[in-house]
Formats: sequence, C-alpha cells, structure tokens
Amino acid sequence: MLGTQTAIMNNEQYPSVPTKEKHMNIISIKAIEDIGYDLQDSILLKSLAPEENTQCRRGLYFQDGKRRVDYILTYHIKKTSSSRRHTSRLRDNAFTRTLRRGRAPPPHAPKDDAEAASPDHSMDHHDDDKCLRREEFESNLMEMGLELERDEETKTPGVGFVKIHAPWSVLCREAEFMKLKMPTKKVYEVKNSSGVMEKINAFISKLTDPLHPNLEENRIQKVKHLSYPFSREKQHLFDLSDKDSFFDSKTRSSLVFEVLKRTKCTKAKFSMGITSLLGSGVYLAAYPLHDGDVGGENAEPNDRKLLYEEWASYSVFYKYQPIGLIRKYFGEKIGLYFAWLGIYTQMLIPASLVGVIVFLYGCVTVDDDIPSMEICDERKNITMCPLCDRVCSYWNLSTACGTGRASHLFDNPATVFFSIFMSLWAAFFMEHWKRRQMRLNYEWDLTGFEDEEDHPRAEYEFRVMQKSLKKDHKSQKPEKEKLTCKDRFPAYMTNLIMMLLMIGVTFAIVFGVILYRISTKAALAMSSNPMTRSNVRLTVKTTAAIINLVVILILDEVYGAVARWLTVLEVPKTDKSFEERLIFKTFILKFVNAFTPIIYIAFFRGRLGGRPGSYLYVFESYRMEECAHGGCLMELCIQLSITMLGKQLIQNNLFEIGVPKLKKLIRYIKSKRGSFQEEEYEKKLQRYETDYFLEPFVGLTPEYMEMIIQFGFVTLFVASFPLAPLFALLNNIIEIRLDAKKFVAELRRPDAARAKDIGIWYNILRGVAKVAVIVNAFVISFTSDFIPRLVYQYMYSPDGSMHGFLNHTLSYFNVSHFQNGTAPLEPFHLGFHVDICRYKDYREPPWSPTPYEISKEFWAVLAARLAFVIVFQNVVMLMSDIVDWIIPDIPKDISLQIHKEKILMMDLFMKEEQGKTRTEDSCKETSPSSLTRSRSVSHTTCKNY
Amino acid sequence: MLGTQTAIMNNEQYPSVPTKEKHMNIISIKAIEDIGYDLQDSILLKSLAPEENTQCRRGLYFQDGKRRVDYILTYHIKKTSSSRRHTSRLRDNAFTRTLRRGRAPPPHAPKDDAEAASPDHSMDHHDDDKCLRREEFESNLMEMGLELERDEETKTPGVGFVKIHAPWSVLCREAEFMKLKMPTKKVYEVKNSSGVMEKINAFISKLTDPLHPNLEENRIQKVKHLSYPFSREKQHLFDLSDKDSFFDSKTRSSLVFEVLKRTKCTKAKFSMGITSLLGSGVYLAAYPLHDGDVGGENAEPNDRKLLYEEWASYSVFYKYQPIGLIRKYFGEKIGLYFAWLGIYTQMLIPASLVGVIVFLYGCVTVDDDIPSMEICDERKNITMCPLCDRVCSYWNLSTACGTGRASHLFDNPATVFFSIFMSLWAAFFMEHWKRRQMRLNYEWDLTGFEDEEDHPRAEYEFRVMQKSLKKDHKSQKPEKEKLTCKDRFPAYMTNLIMMLLMIGVTFAIVFGVILYRISTKAALAMSSNPMTRSNVRLTVKTTAAIINLVVILILDEVYGAVARWLTVLEVPKTDKSFEERLIFKTFILKFVNAFTPIIYIAFFRGRLGGRPGSYLYVFESYRMEECAHGGCLMELCIQLSITMLGKQLIQNNLFEIGVPKLKKLIRYIKSKRGSFQEEEYEKKLQRYETDYFLEPFVGLTPEYMEMIIQFGFVTLFVASFPLAPLFALLNNIIEIRLDAKKFVAELRRPDAARAKDIGIWYNILRGVAKVAVIVNAFVISFTSDFIPRLVYQYMYSPDGSMHGFLNHTLSYFNVSHFQNGTAPLEPFHLGFHVDICRYKDYREPPWSPTPYEISKEFWAVLAARLAFVIVFQNVVMLMSDIVDWIIPDIPKDISLQIHKEKILMMDLFMKEEQGKTRTEDSCKETSPSSLTRSRSVSHTTCKNY
Repeated sequence: MLGTQTAIMNNEQYPSVPTKEKHMNIISIKAIEDIGYDLQDSILLKSLAPEENTQCRRGLYFQDGKRRVDYILTYHIKKTSSSRRHTSRLRDNAFTRTLRRGRAPPPHAPKDDAEAASPDHSMDHHDDDKCLRREEFESNLMEMGLELERDEETKTPGVGFVKIHAPWSVLCREAEFMKLKMPTKKVYEVKNSSGVMEKINAFISKLTDPLHPNLEENRIQKVKHLSYPFSREKQHLFDLSDKDSFFDSKTRSSLVFEVLKRTKCTKAKFSMGITSLLGSGVYLAAYPLHDGDVGGENAEPNDRKLLYEEWASYSVFYKYQPIGLIRKYFGEKIGLYFAWLGIYTQMLIPASLVGVIVFLYGCVTVDDDIPSMEICDERKNITMCPLCDRVCSYWNLSTACGTGRASHLFDNPATVFFSIFMSLWAAFFMEHWKRRQMRLNYEWDLTGFEDEEDHPRAEYEFRVMQKSLKKDHKSQKPEKEKLTCKDRFPAYMTNLIMMLLMIGVTFAIVFGVILYRISTKAALAMSSNPMTRSNVRLTVKTTAAIINLVVILILDEVYGAVARWLTVLEVPKTDKSFEERLIFKTFILKFVNAFTPIIYIAFFRGRLGGRPGSYLYVFESYRMEECAHGGCLMELCIQLSITMLGKQLIQNNLFEIGVPKLKKLIRYIKSKRGSFQEEEYEKKLQRYETDYFLEPFVGLTPEYMEMIIQFGFVTLFVASFPLAPLFALLNNIIEIRLDAKKFVAELRRPDAARAKDIGIWYNILRGVAKVAVIVNAFVISFTSDFIPRLVYQYMYSPDGSMHGFLNHTLSYFNVSHFQNGTAPLEPFHLGFHVDICRYKDYREPPWSPTPYEISKEFWAVLAARLAFVIVFQNVVMLMSDIVDWIIPDIPKDISLQIHKEKILMMDLFMKEEQGKTRTEDSCKETSPSSLTRSRSVSHTTCKNY
Repeated sequence: MLGTQTAIMNNEQYPSVPTKEKHMNIISIKAIEDIGYDLQDSILLKSLAPEENTQCRRGLYFQDGKRRVDYILTYHIKKTSSSRRHTSRLRDNAFTRTLRRGRAPPPHAPKDDAEAASPDHSMDHHDDDKCLRREEFESNLMEMGLELERDEETKTPGVGFVKIHAPWSVLCREAEFMKLKMPTKKVYEVKNSSGVMEKINAFISKLTDPLHPNLEENRIQKVKHLSYPFSREKQHLFDLSDKDSFFDSKTRSSLVFEVLKRTKCTKAKFSMGITSLLGSGVYLAAYPLHDGDVGGENAEPNDRKLLYEEWASYSVFYKYQPIGLIRKYFGEKIGLYFAWLGIYTQMLIPASLVGVIVFLYGCVTVDDDIPSMEICDERKNITMCPLCDRVCSYWNLSTACGTGRASHLFDNPATVFFSIFMSLWAAFFMEHWKRRQMRLNYEWDLTGFEDEEDHPRAEYEFRVMQKSLKKDHKSQKPEKEKLTCKDRFPAYMTNLIMMLLMIGVTFAIVFGVILYRISTKAALAMSSNPMTRSNVRLTVKTTAAIINLVVILILDEVYGAVARWLTVLEVPKTDKSFEERLIFKTFILKFVNAFTPIIYIAFFRGRLGGRPGSYLYVFESYRMEECAHGGCLMELCIQLSITMLGKQLIQNNLFEIGVPKLKKLIRYIKSKRGSFQEEEYEKKLQRYETDYFLEPFVGLTPEYMEMIIQFGFVTLFVASFPLAPLFALLNNIIEIRLDAKKFVAELRRPDAARAKDIGIWYNILRGVAKVAVIVNAFVISFTSDFIPRLVYQYMYSPDGSMHGFLNHTLSYFNVSHFQNGTAPLEPFHLGFHVDICRYKDYREPPWSPTPYEISKEFWAVLAARLAFVIVFQNVVMLMSDIVDWIIPDIPKDISLQIHKEKILMMDLFMKEEQGKTRTEDSCKETSPSSLTRSRSVSHTTCKNY
C-alpha cells in the first residue's frame, strides 16, 4: 500500500528527478514497475513462456513482456556515434531548462520552425529544440498517466521509437470521458419474429450462408449484451473479469490517441499539440500498432490475419464483408466506408441486371424499329446534304444504316424507363444506406454519440500565433486572436481565381479536342487515299476519346494536388473543416474534369452547326462538327464507355496497385541504403519497425471520391449508357478487395475514429442524384429522338404509326442556295444531278414564303421536349421524395430493440435503486450532503486498511 | 435512523396493510410524514407565516403547507351521501382482492371497458372496478416514492382530487434517468466579440431595448453556468443550497409525469398505464398546476402572472416574446412553437415590405404600361367576340380598360422578381429557424438530448390485448402480440377511401361553384334590367368567392374531425405516430380544401373554354367560363385575398376567441348546475379546482396547422398577390398574443414536453416551400402575360417595343362560322355590322389554309413558357440549396461556445481526477474489484453511525 503510493509520488515528481539517472532506453521503468499490475498482467504472464516473450510478440509489448504497446511515436536521431554524446549533452540542457521552468523560453524558439534549411550550427540548434520539445511532451504524457519506453537501438538507423502503454486506470478514465458505450453484464434474448417469418428468415440465412465470411461473429446471436456508457462509478455493470481484453487493441490505441491530442507542449511560446509536433518534425510519425503479421508460417492467429484471409482476398470476392471485424480492427469511420461500399456494390447488382435487360431489349427490337428500317431502306434513296464544305459530297442516307441501327440500342423507350428506374434506384439506395447506417450505429453502440468539434489544426494555431505576435508589437494587449475574413481574404481570392482558372483549363482542353477533331477530320477527308477517307470517322472518334481520357487522367492528379494546395492556403481551423473544404474543391474540379466532354457531346454537339447554306464556322475556316445521323446518343455512349472503363482500369490497376508498391520499395531502399537480405531483414524487425515502413494512412477522401465519380457515371447519363452499372459493378468487386488489401497489408494502422455517418459524402451523393434527374430528363428529351418520335406519332402521323417519321425530321435544301465556295466539288458523286438535298432539322422548305425559317413543327417538338423535362423532373423528384418518406430511416426492428433496451436499462436501474433505497438512502437522509461525506469516509477507512 | 427505516418499511408493505386503517382523505399521510424532509422543507416552513399557509397558497401545497403539489389526478365520485358507505364497501373489496393477488382476476374485468352503457348494477360494478384500479395505481405510485394526498370534499361536487408530491429523492432519481442537464456551480465568462463588433452589438441592443419584454432574464448575462446531466453521483457539481427551487415547477411536474407514465396497473389482465386509465375514465384528468393567479389584487408575483403581463397582452404586441420564460413555464415544446411563430412573424416584416413596394411599383407604372394603354385606347376600336352564347353581343375591348389596368398591378416584371425573392425568403426563413432552433437548444441545455420513443398508446394496447385474447382461444401459446398489416388493413382501406372521398367532395364543391357562376351569369345576363347586367361580373365573382370561403370554413372543421376519426381507426402505436398521422391527414385535407379553388382559377379557368365557333359546353348547355381580358391573374388575386382574409378573420376571431369562452361557460354551468355567484365562487376555489375548470390542452397541432396553411398562402401564389405577406403579418401579430392569452389564462397547464425541434412541421414547411417554387413558376409563365410579352418583344415586335402586343395576342374569327344558335341575338349592339371579331388566343386566321388551327406563335410562346418554368424552378431551387448550404446550421458563436464548454468540463474533470488519483486510486489498485467492496464498506460504516 505504502509502496504504491511512493511509486505514484515518484511518477508525479518525475520531471524534477535528474534525467541523467535514466538509462538509455527505458524511461523511469523502475517507477512504473512498482505500480504493480496485478490481475490482468499476471494472467498474461502465466500464458507466456519466457522464450515467447522475445520471439513471437516482437514489439507488441514493452520489454518486460507484460505491458502492451498501444501507440508508437517515432522521431529522427543522429546516426553517427558522435551524436550519442551530443544527445547526453542535450539531456543536461533539458534538465537545466526544467529547473528554470516558468521563465520565458528563448525568443528564437518559434522562429526556428520557419527556417528549416539553415547551416549546420542552426541545424544542431534545431535538433536541440526538437529534443527538448520531445522531453517536455513525454513528461506531460507521463503526467497524464501514460507509461513510455524508448527504443533507439533498432535495426532501423536514424529512427527512434517511443512506445506508449496506457494502464488500466488511464483507459478507464478516458473511456469515461469519451462516453464510450461498452457491453454490460446484463444480457437479454433477441427475440426473432415469430412463426412463418422465423422460418423464412432461417431459410434465407441458410441460403446465404456460403456468402458470409468464415467468422465466429457472423453466427446469429440469440442473446445480446446491453450497452452503457462506461463510467467508473458504474463499474459493477461491466464484466471486468479480464481487464486486459475488456478494451480491444483498437479502443486502447484510440484512448491513447485522445490523451495525445489533449496533451500540449506549453514551454515554447507557441503551444504545440501532437499535430503541431508531427508537422514541425519533432516527431516523424505517430501510429498504433497492427495486431500481428498477415502471413508467414509462425504467425499466431490475430484479427489482422483473419481480415487478410477472410476479407482482403480475391478468392472471397462473392462473400459479404466482415464489417463487424473491420470496425473492430479499424474503427467506425473505416468500417462505415466499407459498409457503404458494400451496400453500393450490392445495389449495383439489380441496376446492372436491369441495365443489361434494357440493352438486350434494344438489341432484340432493333429489327422492328421503323425509323432505323427507314434509314436502311435503300429504295427511299434520300440524298443528304454534304457533311463538310467542298471536299465532301452528297451522300445517301442508307449508308448511315449501321449507325442508325446501333443508336436504337441506346435510344428506345426502354431507356426512358431505365432512367426513371435509376433515379428511383438512387433514392432507394440512399434510403437503404441510411437504414443500414442506423443499424450499424445500433450494433456498434453509437446511438447517442455526438460528433465533437476537433481541436484546431497546427497550421491554424501557427497562423494565429503569428498574427498575435504581429499585434503584440502594436498594442500591448495580449489576447486570444482568431483569423478574420480579412486575414483570409487573399487565400479566398486565390482559391476563387485558381478554381475558375482550373475550370477554364478544362473547358479549353475540351475545346482543343473539338478543334483537333474538326481539323483532323478535314485534313483526313482531303486525303486522296479512299481507305483513309472511309475510316475518317472511326479514327477521329477513337483518337479524340483517347486524348480526352488521357487528359482527364492527368488533370485528375493535377487537380487533386491543386485542391490540396488551395485548402492548405485557406488555413481551415479544424481537421474536419479542412477535410470538408478539400473534398468540396476536389469534387468540383474532378467532376467538371470528368463530365465536361460528356456534357458537350450530350447537349451542344451538333446543335451549334447551323444549317446548309449558313453554317457556323470556328476561326472562320472550320465548320462546327455535326453528329452522325441517329443522334448524338451513339457518340455520347462511346465517349462514356471509353472514359469510364479507361478511368477505372488505369486508375485502379496502375495507380492504386502500382504506386503504393513503388513507394514502399523506395522507402525500403532509402532506409536500407543497400545490401540487406530483404526477407531476413524483415523477419528480424520489431512490429513497430515493420509498421513504420508501411505507407501512412492519408484518409478516406480518395477512396470516396473515386466512388462518387463512378456514381456520377452510373446515374448522370444512364439514359444514354445502360451498361454503366454493370461496368461499375465489375469494377467495385475488384475495388473492395483491392482497398481491403491496401488497408490490411500496405498501410499503417489508422487511428480508429468514431463516426456515425459518412458525413459530407452523403450530401454529395444526394446532390449527384438530384442533378442526375435533371440531366437524364434533358438527355432523354434533347439528345435522344424519343420526344420527336412521340410528337410525330400523336400529332402528325397520318395513320398513328411511325412510318414517315424519317421524312418528317428531314428538311429540304435547294443546292443553289449554297454560299460561295462551300458547294461540293464533286456534285455527281452519287451518280446523278442533285437539286434538293435533305438535312436533319425542322425548317421550312425552300418553296415556302419564309424559306429555311424554323418551322411550326420545331416549336411543337420543342414545347413537347420542355414539357417532358418538367414532367419527368417533377414526377421523378416526387417519387424519390415518396420513397424517402415511405421508408423509415430507422429500421422497425432496430427502433423496437432500442426501445426495449432502454426499458431494460431502466428496469435494471430501478431494481438497483430499490435495493439502494433500503440501505443507502436511509443513512443518506439523516444528514445533508451525506453522500460526499460517506464517500470521504470510505476513503478514510480505505487508507486505514 | 431506525424510525426512518421503519417508515420506509411501512411504505413498502403498504399494500398488505388493511386499507380500512387509512382515513378518508389522506393516504398514509402518517407514514410519509415520518420520512422527514429536513433541509428543503424546513426552509419553506420558515418563510411561511401560518395564516399564509391556508390563505395565499391555496391548493398549491399539501395540507401541511410544506410539500408542493406537483401533479393532480381527478376522478369521478358519487355525489350522493349513500355513496360514501358504498365506497367503504368497495375498500373492503379492494382489501380482499389484495390478499388474493396473483390469482387470475375476474374474467369480466376487461370486458367491462367495452360495455359502457349498461344498467345500474353493472354501472356500480363498473365504478367498483374503477375504484380498485385507482387504489392499485396510487399504491404503485407510492411504491415509486411519490407522496399522495386525497381531497374529495371540495367545492366541486362529484370530482375527487389526488394531489401528488415528489420528494427530493424521487426528483433526483428521475432527473438522473431523464439525463436532465442542469446548471452546475462552475461558471465562466461569456466573452463578447472584441472591439468594433462589441460596440455595434451594444448599440444594437440599446436600440432594440424597448422591444424586449420587461424581464430580468433578458439582461445580457456576462457569465454562464456550465450544464451537465444531473446525476446523484455528481451532486457535488451542482448548487444544491436551495433544494426546493433547484428544480422549477415545470421540471418537477414533468418528472412526476415521467413516473406516472411508467407506472402500470397490472392486476387486471389488461395492463394499464396512465393514458389507459384516463381513456377508460378511471381518472377524469391529469394535469400539473399553474403557478398562481394571473390577476386579482391579492395575487403574489409568479411566472404565470409575469407571462400574462409581459407576453399575453395586446399592449406589448411590438415587443419580442419572453421565450426563455415561456420555456421555463410551459416546457421546450411549447417554447419552440412560440419561438417559431415569432421568427416567422419577424421574417414576414421584410417580405411584406418588399410586397408593398412591388405593389406600389405596379401602381406607379400602370400609366406607362403599353399593353394596358392599348386596351384603353378607344381609337383602336377592337371588336371582341361575345362572352356568352346568344344573349351576349360583340363588345369593344376598351370597355375592359379598368380590368386591364388593374391586372397590371399584379402582373408586371416586379412580380417575377418578387416570387424569386419569396422563394429565397422561404429558404432563408428555414435556415434562420434552424439556427435559432440550434441556439435555443444550446440555451435550453438540450444539446445531446435524444427523442425517446413513446410508450404505446392505450388504444393500441387494448387492441393488442383483444387480439391476443382471440388468439388464446385458438392456440394456448400466450405471447406478446402486435398489430400486423392484416389487422390494420380494414382501417387503411377506410382511410384511403375516405381521403379520396373527401378530396372528391372538395373537387365536387369547386365544380359546383363553377356551375353556380356559369348559370348565374347566364341567368343574370338574360335579365332585362341593364343595371343588373352591368353588375353581373362583380356580383357573380363576389358571391362565388364568398360561397367558396364559407364552404372552406365549414369543410375545414369537418375535415379536422374526419382526420381525427380516421387516425383513431388506424390505432397507431405511439402518441408520436398518432400525432404524425393525424397531422399528415389533416394537412392534406385542409390544404386541398384551401387551395383547390385557387388552383382551378390559376391554371384551368379560361383554358378549357375552346374558341369561338367551337366552345366547350358543360351539361351541353353551359359554356365554360372565360377570364376577363387581362388574364385570370386578377380573379386569382380576388379569390386569394377573400379566402385568406376571411379565413384568418373568421377562424381567428370567431373560433379561437369565441369557442373557448363558450366552452368554459358551458363547463361552469354544467358543474355548478345553477346559481352560484361566479366570482365569489371562483375566489374560494383551490388552485387545482380552478385549473380543473380550464380547457384541457389538446396539443399544438391546430396552431401549427393554421400557420402552415397561412405559409402556403404567403408562398404558393405570391406571384399573383404580393400583399399576402402583409396580411399574414397583421394576422400574426394578433395571433401571437391570442395564443399567449389562451395558453396562460384559458388552458390547463400542459405537461412540459422536451423537444429539440418542431418535428414533422419543419418537413411540411420545406415541402410547401418546394411546391411554392413550382407553383410560382407556373403562375408566372402560364397565368400571367409575362412570357407572351417577352416573346413578342424579342421575337415578333418590329421595333423591339411592346407596341402591337395586344394585336398579336388576339386571333381573328369570322362571325359567319358561329355554330347554329350561338350567334349573338343583337349583332348590331355596337352600332355597326361585324364581320370579324377578335378573341384572345394564338390561332390561325380564318383566311389561312388551316383556319382556326393552333398557330406557330402558340407553340413558340408555349415553348418559352415551359423553358421559363424549367429555368425558374432549377435556378430558384439551386439558389435555395446554396442559401441552405452557405448558412451554417449551427451559429458560429454557439458552436464555439459548445466547444469551449466541453473543454472547460474536461478541465474540471481532469482536475478532480488528479485530486482523486492521489487518494483513491492508491487504495483501489491494491485489491481487485475494490470499488464495490469499498462502497459496501461505506455502507457498513454508515449504518454503524
């Protein structure tokens, strides 16, 4: 008893104990050992043979083999042996500094951060300063109750490791502060639905059994533990028989991370948290440890290995993901990402099924389609006006038969149905995800958890400090400053200008590709080689699409970097705000980048060309391009498929697989500097060293972003490309396992973050789904021939059939009205003299009183198109809202269960209460404020023990 | 000490104590008094002179003058003296019943509820049963720790009162269970914004000072108490020096209400909660007490009186509402309603200002408006086709000059601006409210509070019981049943059919009014009296609008009743679900009712009439009505203003003021049965009796509903009636004080309900605002002449001006093409022979190859109209979304303050922690599970005291 107290006193007084006394690697290990971890550690000790201690738990425990490493901080040390002496000098310095604590720090301390590349002396000084900061930070951590162990003699030269262990009392305290819900001892039976439903459920679960991963947790549990926010005052509620496993490794490290975030270095004028320390290079990295190795013969079973086998493997691609285990290992935020990705992929299955059916419907009905039959009918012998000036000649419509038939595949009534279906699908997906999210919230005990505002970012604090320093010179009133709009104005302006510039660049490139297409086409058309001329269209289309793709891919990377740079300029206050601003900017840039060429093709191409005799010219020489007969839908479709497929294949395979491997290799080479046997080397490494070589986790933004852009491809132009969901599905099946591999094997373990939802992404998804409705409405009514056909059928057709539709859509042109020098050079190309040629537009014939004016039919069709847009948009939006409203956000069974748990918890408390009333209250009522007194009594008795 | 324990034992064993021992009015008052309320009550006692005890705190305290009455239950008692004997017999019965507790209750018990109107014997039996239930319920309440006092000898014959008091321990327990946030002792300074902003704020607050109500709380507070969920383990955090006022009267009663809701009667087969008991008449009413009298010379100051003076008075109509006090007195839910109403009214000020300006703009520009000048220009001499068959003749357009000019008031470019403005206004209003709500949540310590699912409603439980009884007969497996879709199917079908029927009725009535209008017009036009004929239009319009209004008012009441009846049929599970379903149905019915005639006028009237020579006839004899020249906008405006004004005036003044007064009168007369001196009588009454005579509170639904319908008037057709916001504003200024008076003086005090938001109403508001955008788009493009004018100006006008517009909109008709018998009887009415008359439409002239066909201009205008709708809808929606997105939901200062409070709380705990670690942890670590042991130790020592 007395011993323990002394130990704590020791620990308390640690900063004033001369630091020289500590031996090289272990910080006050003596003092810590005295505290005495009785129960949980003794169990551990028993289960460990002495040789295992060093062999198989390499680096997962402190050197005593008892205390678990919950977190790692790494820092840079001088590699030369001379630095050792140097370091000890530093220690002295630290000691003396400690003594004059409270006095103002040397004024140059904060300035040092700014001048990174300075001569050797300053470098030394810089290192001094970093070392001092570390000392202070670590002593503050110990004051918070954490236990540290230092390891500078690893196989990784130049890097020192600080291992952090959180003792039980600290874990309890932090869990209470975080209001962490933990399972209590109280269990209750989860009643399944009765009778028939039960049997059906059992049947379904039997059916889907092979789809579930091979894990214990997936068995249906009949009982459930009630959860309650952990509190030391309510410890009797929890099952604390095994204190070592009560908090799992993810929870332990996140609790330690909480302490780290709260701890500050205050000696320097500029108060630094862990983020600032990392940012200024005082520490190199901070990360929790992985549970163990993923492979190898002597790897003991651990969650990471289980994840690697049951999740991060292509062989289980058809199975559900072990979401519970993912959450247990990586935390809720990453768990939610994979759950979302899973739901999205799952929802793509019906979408791609329907998409394929719609496509097949197009294929089957292509022979019954009257308009394309009319195009192909050579007897009609429709002479079309030339497609370009001079070099092109008149052509027979029947030569466009192939395109006409092909465009029917994507332009048929089923497409309209499909885009309505996909809009509702999107609404349904949202709802489904909301429900799933709610269910996960319940299962993960997140109900009642509220997002907390983050601590300010290091950069923000630094800027604020700079500002207040500047102010201090003027007025001597020291006060907590904040960045005002005025301070931020330059950054905002830069942001705005850069964003506009970037969007301008995208537009310029799209315009460039158009010019390329027009000029190449003109150049190739002039070629004398007939083969070349016949292949003009295909060549130009394909090369243009590929150029587009390459540009998109390159700009994607550029824009990502630009967005990050712009966000850093803005100096947002918190990490959350930083993330949101970054996401917003990245999203806009990438979205514009991906969809501008497509939007051009869908809505502008072929509409700006003018009419024969009065074409629109770019740079006064190039005629604006037209679409092939059969609408631009076909071209849109080609562009879409090339962009989507190319983007997914290249970005996924090249970037996501290749680049991390490359980076890891570079990291190895850099730190090895040569000639180790890699595998041998790796085996000898401690856990924390192995993890150090892994890529750091940079957030989920790129993963989400990729999926959102894909979601855009799936929903936005689905009317023109019904196979998009199928391609997305195939991509995602690979994507899930790819991401899984990355998270399990190639990244450092991320700090487990709690999250109730996917945050801003949900809003972006909603936005995309909303825009999709409008875009699809316009694609159907303006890009496809759906509306003109309907109008013809019900307003103009003499017999109510589609016969004559083709004739109705073609206007007449008198070839004598060609402008000078634009008439074809070979007017007899078709073998006969042409007086009148046809072109696709609704205009008055040359013989009307107002020749080539827009005709009444044009206005009627336009009105119908616009009316369709209004009806489609509002009906689909209404239906989405109804879907949103009918499906409750919280699944019925979950809300019932939550209610039931509340009642059970209430009962438990009431019972406890009644027990207490008889004993405790009776003595409480005798004296006012007896509670506190009785508590103090308990302490006294305790101490007298 | 021993005595206390015995008392509690007594209390515990109460059910087995022969009930005879209890004397008439006071239930186990002896046992309760023994428990001994030391601190808080002794303070009270000191402050009370003995004569005050009976005089001025009439009925607010138990008869001992110490314990506060927190809640009242009333029940029906036999008035005759013979019943007294009867009652004591009942008590015997109860006693014997208590003894055989556990055995099955008599099988007829639940059945009794169903047969309410049975002969006298059964009636007695029924009363028996009720009395037994009451006894059980009350003993259960006492088991929960509440203290009761009975009063059957009041001045109100036939009604018994049970007064409920919650002792401190119960209050603490319930507050802990409800996680009620209470102010702690820890205060911190609220830092105001620095420098210039501070001065501006001070200036503004000085400026608005007279607008604030005369209350203490409104002074700007420099310090704020940190709040923390109340917990008995953390009692040291709170300032418990005055335990009696720690929980205010609203909180006390709501804590008692929590207990009431949880307490069940379980002896009967059908477990009954308080709602069931109220529903089955076991209790007549349950309500908390008002704080005191609102007026009178001897009324002591209390919150109610303060509210009455500073809030519920027309003389303070220009002031802000004392929201904090309202919340303190009525609870958060009602507080939110008034806060919302306040914000809405406030937001109406700018809206009505802009509306008036727009209207004035119309007035000013009416003389410069070329189209109306052209109408009035008699030189043009445009002969119009007759407005009705045969009896009407040709007329000169210049006679419609007045209407044409008037319609310019509401149909000018400013209207377009105004409807965009109002859409953004609505979005802004939503955002403003969200922020205000967040601020209130913070101020009222509701952050972190989550809505809990209600207990099932009595009716639901009853139905479930019936069902399980039925099932019991078939299978002997007793299990918890629930209502399935199958059970509910009949109710759902009834709902659907009734809703459709009701909507059908509305349509039918609108159609009826149309018929009335057509037929009256025809009849009056045939009249020989020229005066009558000239006044035809006005007479018909006005009477029709009044009929519409009357029908709307009547149907409003009918629909309210129908919706309630339908919802009762549905048997929703919880009160919340009941409320939502009721609101949904009521909203649909009332909305359809209020807006169908208006929608007809806006979009259908005058569009279905056909053209001269081929009119549409209803019942083969009445020609469909047309609008006067100048569009239907004018008529829409008249209809809108009459409906809106009439509805508000009549519903507000007649129904809201008159009906409650009437009801109160009836209630008095009923219970007095004659000849008391009312005022004298009232003075002698106890507080709980006075409150009993007040109208019970039935929820906020009607109040909200009225406002939502008004919001509909303000936003939906604002394009046609820019003065709507002004009328709404005037109405609301009265409405606030009217509602205030009702709540303070005429209603029983409602149970204080916690609420974070206004619930479903917010979604309805959003829905209305969304619909408003679309409706306004259509009103501008289709009802007004805005688009045709634009089209004319930019497409057809020879000189880009509006000259010639009138001619452009009028088509030609050759009078020889009139159908047989429809040509005017007096063709020479204008004094000359008419060959060609004009009518308003875009059709081909008689001399074109396709006479009377729809012309190209029609399609062009239609396309423009539709394009405008699309552009307007999407632009406005986008702008609303941007407003929604730019304005953060949580005000900056609030989020900062919340963050700050969290940090302060954390610091507080950490300090506490560090203090504790030195003393407590040291002894905790010595033995496993020492905490529970040390606690039990404390108990032992406590007992040995």
